[in-house]
Amino acid sequence: MSEKYKLIKNKAGRMIPKYVNDVESIPYKGVGKHFPNTKKASPLISYCQNYPSNGNKIVPTLKKALEKCNIKNGMTISNHHHFRNGDLIMNQVFNILAELGKKNLRWFPSASFPCHEPMIQHMESGVIKHIEGSLNGPLGKFASEGKMNGTAILRSHGGRWQSIQDGEVHIDVAIIAAPTADSFGNCTGDRGPSACGLLGFGLADSLYADKVIVVTDNLVDFPCIPWQIQGNNVDYVVVLDKIGDPEKIVSGTTKITKSPDRLFIAEQTAKFVQAAGIMKNGFSFQAGAGGTALAFAIYLKKMMKKADIKARFIRAGSTKYLVEMLEEGLTDYILDGQTFDLEGVRSMRENSNHVNTSPFTSYNWHGKGNFASMLDVVVLGATEVDINFNANVVTHSDGQMLHGIGGWQNCLFSKCTILPIPSFRNRIPIIVDKVTTLVGPGELIDVIITERGIAINPNRKDLIKATKNSGLKIRRIEDIKEEVDSLVGAPLEKPIFTDEVIGIIKWVDGTVLDSIFKIKTGELNER
Amino acid sequence: MSEKYKLIKNKAGRMIPKYVNDVESIPYKGVGKHFPNTKKASPLISYCQNYPSNGNKIVPTLKKALEKCNIKNGMTISNHHHFRNGDLIMNQVFNILAELGKKNLRWFPSASFPCHEPMIQHMESGVIKHIEGSLNGPLGKFASEGKMNGTAILRSHGGRWQSIQDGEVHIDVAIIAAPTADSFGNCTGDRGPSACGLLGFGLADSLYADKVIVVTDNLVDFPCIPWQIQGNNVDYVVVLDKIGDPEKIVSGTTKITKSPDRLFIAEQTAKFVQAAGIMKNGFSFQAGAGGTALAFAIYLKKMMKKADIKARFIRAGSTKYLVEMLEEGLTDYILDGQTFDLEGVRSMRENSNHVNTSPFTSYNWHGKGNFASMLDVVVLGATEVDINFNANVVTHSDGQMLHGIGGWQNCLFSKCTILPIPSFRNRIPIIVDKVTTLVGPGELIDVIITERGIAINPNRKDLIKATKNSGLKIRRIEDIKEEVDSLVGAPLEKPIFTDEVIGIIKWVDGTVLDSIFKIKTGELNER
Repeated sequence: MSEKYKLIKNKAGRMIPKYVNDVESIPYKGVGKHFPNTKKASPLISYCQNYPSNGNKIVPTLKKALEKCNIKNGMTISNHHHFRNGDLIMNQVFNILAELGKKNLRWFPSASFPCHEPMIQHMESGVIKHIEGSLNGPLGKFASEGKMNGTAILRSHGGRWQSIQDGEVHIDVAIIAAPTADSFGNCTGDRGPSACGLLGFGLADSLYADKVIVVTDNLVDFPCIPWQIQGNNVDYVVVLDKIGDPEKIVSGTTKITKSPDRLFIAEQTAKFVQAAGIMKNGFSFQAGAGGTALAFAIYLKKMMKKADIKARFIRAGSTKYLVEMLEEGLTDYILDGQTFDLEGVRSMRENSNHVNTSPFTSYNWHGKGNFASMLDVVVLGATEVDINFNANVVTHSDGQMLHGIGGWQNCLFSKCTILPIPSFRNRIPIIVDKVTTLVGPGELIDVIITERGIAINPNRKDLIKATKNSGLKIRRIEDIKEEVDSLVGAPLEKPIFTDEVIGIIKWVDGTVLDSIFKIKTGELNER
Repeated sequence: MSEKYKLIKNKAGRMIPKYVNDVESIPYKGVGKHFPNTKKASPLISYCQNYPSNGNKIVPTLKKALEKCNIKNGMTISNHHHFRNGDLIMNQVFNILAELGKKNLRWFPSASFPCHEPMIQHMESGVIKHIEGSLNGPLGKFASEGKMNGTAILRSHGGRWQSIQDGEVHIDVAIIAAPTADSFGNCTGDRGPSACGLLGFGLADSLYADKVIVVTDNLVDFPCIPWQIQGNNVDYVVVLDKIGDPEKIVSGTTKITKSPDRLFIAEQTAKFVQAAGIMKNGFSFQAGAGGTALAFAIYLKKMMKKADIKARFIRAGSTKYLVEMLEEGLTDYILDGQTFDLEGVRSMRENSNHVNTSPFTSYNWHGKGNFASMLDVVVLGATEVDINFNANVVTHSDGQMLHGIGGWQNCLFSKCTILPIPSFRNRIPIIVDKVTTLVGPGELIDVIITERGIAINPNRKDLIKATKNSGLKIRRIEDIKEEVDSLVGAPLEKPIFTDEVIGIIKWVDGTVLDSIFKIKTGELNER
C-alpha cells in the first residue's frame, strides 16, 4: 500500500489515514493535548484605492461577480448554511462556474442540504473535486458510497472556524447570502423577505477569504444596521430577485416529540438537571432543536416557573419555546448561533437581549476560551454511545454517514453534558461495545438518559453523589446495555467495512479523531 | 552623516528620515499609490486548554496580570484613549513596569493626554524608550524639545489600525480599560460609573495583541451585553475601584465658539453646504467637536429643519447637539467613533440607531473600502493651509508639535472636505506659502472657509459651478492670503529648524508624509 493510503492509529485507538486529500493528518492526541504553536492565517491586505470611493460595490450579475474574482481551477468556494434547505444561491454559483469551465474546485459550505443534490452532477463532471462540510441527504449518500473524488472532512462549527482561522483551509471566494444588505456589503440576516436570523456561520469566511461576494434580495440604503457582516470585508454585492425559499429556511426538525418514550426521557432529563442542583438562579443551559431536546426545554421551563428560578442565559439554536422563556423573563439572555424558526428570527430582530453570536465566540477551540465551556448543562442527541461514554452523532450502526457534527463536539465541553437517547431505535440497541464512529470522547460525556434508566459517567462522582437520593433510576451503563441486548435478542449483523476511507472526523483542535470507512458493496445491512 | 540619520525626499517634496526608530521608512508616494501587496499580521493562535473552562479570567491585581504577561524589555504596551484626560490606568501600568525593572518599552496609546505627564519620568529613567501615538500637552512638549529617546510617530486613527493590521506595529500587551466587563473579558464602554461610550480605539489591540488585559471598575455577570470587545480575545481581567475620572473622560473641547468671527465662519460653512447642493434628503456629514465645527452643525440643523431635509447618517464624534438631531428625526443614524459628552454616551446606550463603529469600519485605508469616503461633506479644523490647499493639523507656525492627527487625515477622503478656519490667529496668518508640516495633501482638500471669503480648490470645478451664483464670497486663495498678509504687515519671524527629526507624520497607507524637525534652541519664536 502506498504511503498515501496508509492508515495510522491515533491516541483514541482509531485508524485514520496518514494523508487526507493529499494533506498530512495530525492524529488526535487527547482532549486539550494539541499545541501546534503557530500563528493565525494572514489574509491579504486590501487597499481602498481598489474599491469605489462612493462605497457602491454592486455588480449587475452573479456571473459578473464570479468572473471578477478571477477563480482558478482547484480553488475553494465557501458559503454559510443559514438558509438550510431553502438556499437558492449555491446551485446557481456552481452552475455558473461549470459554464465558465472551472474544474477541480473545493466546495466548503458550513453545511449542505438535500436542495444541493445538483452538486452531484458537478462532482461527476469534475467541476467540484470534493465537498468539505456537513453532508446531509443525497450528498451524504453519494459520499458514503465512495463516489466523491476526495475524502469528506467533517468538522464541528467551532472546528470550521478553527480550520479557517488557523490557515488549514484557505477560502478563495466566499459567498454570503444576505437577507438584507447595503451596496457597501454591510449585511444582516434578521430582516428582509428571506430573513434567516443571523449570518454567524459566514463570519469567518468574510474575515479570511480573498474575495467576498454578498448576494441579497433586499438592498437598503447605506448603512445597513445592524451589520452582522461588515462591508469593509466585502468585494462585490449582487442583487437578485430571491435568495432563499422562506418556508425551507427554517428547520424542519423543530417539532416536539410525540413519542411517549421520548417524552419520558425528556422529563427525566429535566428532573436530573434539577436533582443535580444545576437548575438554580443564574444558571445556563443549551438544548438542541431535536424533538427530545425541545421537550426537555419545555419540562425544564415548567420546573423553573414552579421553583421561581431564572436563568442568566440560554445558548441556542433558538426556537419559539426559548423565545417564550426570554419574553416571560425566565432568562436574561439568549446567546444564539442560529435561529431555527421565524419566532427566533423575530426575537433576534426585536429584542436586544436575544444576541447573535458566532462560532468564534461560542465554539472556537483555538481562542482565549469560548462560551461552550461556561454552560452549566447541555442536552444533545447521539446515534450511538458505548460503555465508556464515547458517542457517535455522524454515522448509524449501519455505517452510513448521515449527519453533520454541527456544534455537538463543541458543546461537549459544558460543565454537564447529557445525552438523552432511547435505548434502541428500530430494534437496534444504541448502547454498544464500541461506537461505529468516534465523534465525542467519553471523558467529556457525563450522563446518558434512556427510558430504562440514567447512567452517569463514573468520573463524575459529584453528579453521582448529588443525585444519589433523588429517586431517579440511576444505573450502571453496562446494566442498561445488558438489559437492552437481552430484549433485542441475538446480536444483529454488523456492516462489513472496506479499508477505503470516505470521510474523516476532525476533533475541535483540527486533529483527526476517526475515519468513516466505505461499506463493502452488497453487504450493507439494510435494516 | 551615517545612513541612520540620512534624510530623503518623498513624492510630496518633503524630507523624511531614511530610518525611523531603526526601521526603514517607506516614503509617501502620492494618494492611493502605495500597493505593498503583502498579508495582514497573523496573531498567535491561542488554545482553550490554557484558559479557565468556567470562563473566569479574573486576576487579583494589575501587577499580577502584568507579571503573567511575561513582559520583556523592549516590548510594546498599548491602550485606547476613550478615557481621555480622565485615564487612571496607564500611569499605574508603567509605574508597575518600572517597579518590575522593565526597560526600553514602547508605549503605543491611541492618544496620550496631560494626565500622562508622569510618563516623562519613565522616559527619563529608560523604562519607556518612546511613545508612538498622539502626544498632547506636556508629552508633546517633551518630544518637541527632542528629549524623547526615539522618534515620535504620528498616525491617524485609521493609520493606527493599518499599522497594527499590517504588522507594522506588533503589540505585545494591550490594556483595555472597560467601564463594564464580565469575568470572561467581554466588555463595553456605554455603561457603568466610568462610562465613556465605546471602546473602538482598542478593538485592533484586542484582535492583534499577544496578551490582552481588561481592567474594569464595574464587573457584571457573564454575559456583558453589548460586548464591544470580545472576551474570546482577552487573557486576564482585573477589577479596580476606579478606572477613570468621569468629569475628565468627556472632552473639554465641546463648547460652541463664542467668537463672532468664528460663528460667522461656521454659518458661511453651513450656507456653502446648502448652496453646493450637498444638503439634500439622504445626505451625510461629519463635523468635529471643535467650537467652529459644533457651531456649523447647529447652523446646518436650523437650515435642515427649515428646508425639511433629513440626513441618512451623521459620522461622529457625538455630542449632545448631534444626539438632538437623531432624537428629533433629522438623521436616521449616528455612526459614532467616540463619544465626546455624556449625552453621546447615553444615546449610544439607549438608541440602537446610534451605532458604535471602529477605525476599521470608518477609517482603515487597507480595507475593502471604508466609511470616510462615503461622506457627502466633512468639516475639519487646521492650524495652517497653503495656497495649494495642503494643510497642517499637527504643528503651529512656530514649529511646535501640539496636536495629534485623530481621524483628520482619514476624513479628507470625503466627497467634499471643508476647512473653516480664521484667516489669522494671534496675528499669525493661517494661509501660508508652504505649511510647516504637511499632514493633508491639497488634492484632497476642497474648500477653505475664512471670515474674509471662501476659497474652492480649482480642481473642484463642480463646486465652483454650483456655488457661482450663491451670493457667497468665493475668492481665490491667493487673494485671501494677500489681503491677510498686508493686514498683518511684515512677514513674521519663522522658527529655525535643526536637521534633527523629532517626529514623523504617517500617511493613511503607512508611508512617511513629512517630518517634524527640532527647533534650534533659543531661536523658538515665542509669540
